[in-house]
Amino acid sequence: MTIRELSNSECADLIATGGVGRVAFCTQDGPQIYPVNYTVAEGVIVFRTSAYSRLGLALVKRPRVVFEVDQLEHERMRGWSVVAQATAEPMDDPDEVVGLRPQSRLTPWAEGTRNLLVRLRWQELSGRRVGEW
Amino acid sequence: MTIRELSNSECADLIATGGVGRVAFCTQDGPQIYPVNYTVAEGVIVFRTSAYSRLGLALVKRPRVVFEVDQLEHERMRGWSVVAQATAEPMDDPDEVVGLRPQSRLTPWAEGTRNLLVRLRWQELSGRRVGEW
Repeated sequence: MTIRELSNSECADLIATGGVGRVAFCTQDGPQIYPVNYTVAEGVIVFRTSAYSRLGLALVKRPRVVFEVDQLEHERMRGWSVVAQATAEPMDDPDEVVGLRPQSRLTPWAEGTRNLLVRLRWQELSGRRVGEW
Repeated sequence: MTIRELSNSECADLIATGGVGRVAFCTQDGPQIYPVNYTVAEGVIVFRTSAYSRLGLALVKRPRVVFEVDQLEHERMRGWSVVAQATAEPMDDPDEVVGLRPQSRLTPWAEGTRNLLVRLRWQELSGRRVGEW
């Protein structure tokens, strides 16, 4: 089985395709993870959450998060995975990110009002590709 | 868009299908996340890691982890996601879990020797289904 570490620019290209990612972070009650619909605008990951979700409430502390995107075919044992180490911040003004609209692709998977935009500025990207394509 | 919380047994059924999941946990260096090939045997999640990976090294403390499995179609905005809150433990004797062999489906996505079996006993399952199927 071929395994290859991805370069920083390969990771950035893969994560920039948008779609579904998973954000994980630490709380006093242990680790938390949520799938989110996200987009990448001007090099930052953007997604929606509720101001009253665990992540929403944690944002005041600018928590460290990991954000994972993958496309893994279990049966064929091939695919790729990219992880961003990032700091999460609330985005008060959506207009500050040019190209973010239309926001239809940021429709949240979770229920309720998700009117808080979260911005992840990544400090580090890592990824690997497995198997033959 | 229809969103439905899944019952405990629906979550257990979905997670029991095995395949690819993501395990996230907290370290002194912040949250970590890794995709893994896993299986479920006798109600516990089992996957492989390296004894020298971050998770492998953390196992001595029986860390709390979250384990996420999903099947999300971004374009159609439908799918499901299940999260297990669990404690991670090393599994010293694979034979203690009946039905774990053959282990071919536990082939790790990451490089190097992954000879440590990790067992996650979940304390809580939660999940939701989005969109129409």
